[in-house]
Amino acid sequence: MLSKATIKFINTLNKKKFRQKYNIFAAEGDKICTEILKSNKIKIHSIYALEDWLAKNKPLLKPFLTKTTVITERELKSISFLSTPNKVMILLEKQAPNLDNKLINENLSLILNNIQDPGNLGTIWRIADWFDIKHVFCSPNCVDLYNNKVIQSSMGAFLRVPAQEVEIAELLETHSDVPVYGATLGGKNIFKTNLTKNGFIIIGNESRGIEANLLPQIDHQIAIPQNGNAESLNASVATGIICAAFRNLN
Amino acid sequence: MLSKATIKFINTLNKKKFRQKYNIFAAEGDKICTEILKSNKIKIHSIYALEDWLAKNKPLLKPFLTKTTVITERELKSISFLSTPNKVMILLEKQAPNLDNKLINENLSLILNNIQDPGNLGTIWRIADWFDIKHVFCSPNCVDLYNNKVIQSSMGAFLRVPAQEVEIAELLETHSDVPVYGATLGGKNIFKTNLTKNGFIIIGNESRGIEANLLPQIDHQIAIPQNGNAESLNASVATGIICAAFRNLN
Repeated sequence: MLSKATIKFINTLNKKKFRQKYNIFAAEGDKICTEILKSNKIKIHSIYALEDWLAKNKPLLKPFLTKTTVITERELKSISFLSTPNKVMILLEKQAPNLDNKLINENLSLILNNIQDPGNLGTIWRIADWFDIKHVFCSPNCVDLYNNKVIQSSMGAFLRVPAQEVEIAELLETHSDVPVYGATLGGKNIFKTNLTKNGFIIIGNESRGIEANLLPQIDHQIAIPQNGNAESLNASVATGIICAAFRNLN
Repeated sequence: MLSKATIKFINTLNKKKFRQKYNIFAAEGDKICTEILKSNKIKIHSIYALEDWLAKNKPLLKPFLTKTTVITERELKSISFLSTPNKVMILLEKQAPNLDNKLINENLSLILNNIQDPGNLGTIWRIADWFDIKHVFCSPNCVDLYNNKVIQSSMGAFLRVPAQEVEIAELLETHSDVPVYGATLGGKNIFKTNLTKNGFIIIGNESRGIEANLLPQIDHQIAIPQNGNAESLNASVATGIICAAFRNLN
């Protein structure tokens, strides 16, 4: 049974302001929530689930019984951020990601600049997870990493790939030995570029590109050759192609 | 000024049944609609736009004055399929795409199998446009090509890349000399596969893959190597990586 106060509290989590205030964010649905219970990597604040889901996942839920509330479909609908609520919502505690300077220096990191669409940002996080990109950094003008749609479309990547909001210029200055690649329309064909095993890969906004003040910090401007007529590729599709090239062509 | 009957008629176009019945679909927003007026490739049924948009695009609109209706923001809201309506809606007549058998035989075509998400299908259409893939074929269990979200996320690709619903098995039988590639989890690393300049590329459903009955018709099962832990890539991201490989690595 859910109190009105709880419903109101959860509803506020659709705003960044309140996710920051309470240091909490939400994940929903059978698949992601089962993964959360198994992962043991993130602190669970509370679990709200339908009776049949709780019954099905009893062994996994054992350590969290005091944090679990049985709810009805109607109650789930009142707290869910999905258009089609799916059995369970887990609230999670935000925690500072583990940044590993050795990995930043020796492996690949993605830097996202002004990515506004939550579906794109989540999909990019998932791409990082697929290609074992070690960190995702976001400029402050990106959509919030803990936005519900970002979390849902990351498909569990938030459990595995550390991601953080940073001032990009400062990050690059702190790691000045790491090569910086940036995706630009006028860049060199990525399939004909020597790609290093380590580096920062900057992805900019789909229509506006990488912000002008960052361009001087880019060592290698790269681009995906266009054969047809579309004006641009979707930001997450472009990121997928670039990450695939880095992981397979060097 | 919009009549109640017109509003009702346009509202029905969110259903495939009515798009088929009237043979009409909708495109919205400043960018796509300006492109439609410039393209001269598709028959316009009617244009509904705010006064300032009409004033700005006067020269382009000249041939379509009898089909144009000035509407208010409130009226636009009553007909729009977007959560944030954007100045203009154009209704277009569906027309049979130009299938070019020579291009099918000598160039690349995408075949989509059970792609349900309209955003994914539209994004894949846009990818085809970027990489100059000559045709997009969809199995009958894909989301409708004329779904409003498909059209919006194709970003104008529907003006340039012919796309059609087909029975895949029949299509492959009719073009039995064309090599058939299929993206499967157990496929061969695409970055180590000899890719031909022509071929069908089959993309399956993100969670269920390509339907089993089609597997025997695939000549080359291909896959994108996974370095990390994500269970899968988004279907449009995978398509982007595969098309980029075909266009750049052979």
